[in-house]
Amino acid sequence: MTDSDLQAFGFTVRLQDTDAAGVIFFPHLLHHAHDAYDEFLRHSGIELARLLTEGPHLPIVHCAADYLAPMRLGDRVLVRMSRIALGERSFTLGYRFADAAGKPLARVRTVHVAIDAATGKARPLPQHLRRALTRLPEAEDEAG
Amino acid sequence: MTDSDLQAFGFTVRLQDTDAAGVIFFPHLLHHAHDAYDEFLRHSGIELARLLTEGPHLPIVHCAADYLAPMRLGDRVLVRMSRIALGERSFTLGYRFADAAGKPLARVRTVHVAIDAATGKARPLPQHLRRALTRLPEAEDEAG
Amino acid sequence: MTDSDLQAFGFTVRLQDTDAAGVIFFPHLLHHAHDAYDEFLRHSGIELARLLTEGPHLPIVHCAADYLAPMRLGDRVLVRMSRIALGERSFTLGYRFADAAGKPLARVRTVHVAIDAATGKARPLPQHLRRALTRLPEAEDEAG
Amino acid sequence: MTDSDLQAFGFTVRLQDTDAAGVIFFPHLLHHAHDAYDEFLRHSGIELARLLTEGPHLPIVHCAADYLAPMRLGDRVLVRMSRIALGERSFTLGYRFADAAGKPLARVRTVHVAIDAATGKARPLPQHLRRALTRLPEAEDEAG
Repeated sequence: MTDSDLQAFGFTVRLQDTDAAGVIFFPHLLHHAHDAYDEFLRHSGIELARLLTEGPHLPIVHCAADYLAPMRLGDRVLVRMSRIALGERSFTLGYRFADAAGKPLARVRTVHVAIDAATGKARPLPQHLRRALTRLPEAEDEAG
Repeated sequence: MTDSDLQAFGFTVRLQDTDAAGVIFFPHLLHHAHDAYDEFLRHSGIELARLLTEGPHLPIVHCAADYLAPMRLGDRVLVRMSRIALGERSFTLGYRFADAAGKPLARVRTVHVAIDAATGKARPLPQHLRRALTRLPEAEDEAG
Repeated sequence: MTDSDLQAFGFTVRLQDTDAAGVIFFPHLLHHAHDAYDEFLRHSGIELARLLTEGPHLPIVHCAADYLAPMRLGDRVLVRMSRIALGERSFTLGYRFADAAGKPLARVRTVHVAIDAATGKARPLPQHLRRALTRLPEAEDEAG
Repeated sequence: MTDSDLQAFGFTVRLQDTDAAGVIFFPHLLHHAHDAYDEFLRHSGIELARLLTEGPHLPIVHCAADYLAPMRLGDRVLVRMSRIALGERSFTLGYRFADAAGKPLARVRTVHVAIDAATGKARPLPQHLRRALTRLPEAEDEAG
């Protein structure tokens, strides 16, 4: 995986993503944002499973999503990640969802904080995570 | 259901709400916001299933959530709905999640637009929906 | 909650239960079976959250479901639990899903084993769980 | 995709698959079986989305799963599909879940019937679907 691939993640809209209105049920879009984040961490040598046992935990304290066009069963969707903010103990990620032709479908933003799993207190981001995040392209804060 | 109950909806955190970190997986909180919305509509005499067949559709074009405290398996949570904005063709709802003692757990906001199901074009909100929404207490726009 | 209520649990089919075919996505039915199980335990004084920390764990090692009639958005469904088998270290539960008029909609069966959370080894069912299970009505093994 | 790949499908256990017990929540395994089925159809030139609009529908009328070993966050899992039965108006598929070393993790079975979407009546399987199903390796009925 090269740096240019680092922020790209693709998925197919599955039956469990959809609802009786025939489109993605709005919270399910966030699963795919989180999958992209999981893959990004993995390709940076960071495993969520290890963070859960060894810490720190990185809970999402805020998320926002803009739904720009309907996504339907079988649609192929590409997710591009970006770094919106990087603080001492928190970071904000952006996710742009588009179809194969580049048509924007959705935007998502997640704010994560690093906490000690035992005490729940905020703590500094680990260096390897900070280095991984700096490899993401920067973006402005775009999703409402 | 009295007007004072109209915006109250309770749920128990179930195993499918949680993830390996032991708390609600962040998108799942939005299921419960949508359940509260569904119940609110139902008690106002409006059925989502009928809207899906007869229109208009009311897709969510934006959502945002603040996670204030962890919610764990078996926790009892109360949701209080409010009306943040009511336009000609759209409306914004607020949801405050709290425990039995009133401790704030989360805040959610959803923005809905009315569209014609066949054409996807925006259209005015139906009168019975407008009337139902005006019965909700007003709130300021609070979730990021 | 009386003994006659003990095995009854109701739910409304929500948007997140459905898929683009307009009916419950088949795995989601099992969420409601598990919710009924969770409520049954709770009303018997047993909390899943406490079992997760203190043990034993009661993982499901087998499940089966028969889908007899479509369940759609807004449908009200009643679940009745039964005890199909009760062994030294395992038990099998049945769940009958029906509409308000008693029309059968689905049948589910789950097989649980008691294991030590640390070692993963099978262990005897705790006495309070055994007592709770004996209060459920018996049923034959009906779901394929 | 060669015939030998036709029945292979891999996935990574994501946070949304897991629950507070730290393993896959049992219904979520079925999502992955259905994803494998979706991919198998797609590689056979059959799109679920088109079946939903043009028919026939292929609802699952029975499913069963055996959980043989815990699957945890980050685990890589391979699914191999097989054909257990192929009738005039129905078919039964098998799914074997294993880790990279071939260790069995789970078995799933799904029974599908072809119905006319408008009337709900059973109808013969389309020829292109029948041809696709005959390319799957045969298996005995193994999941309880």
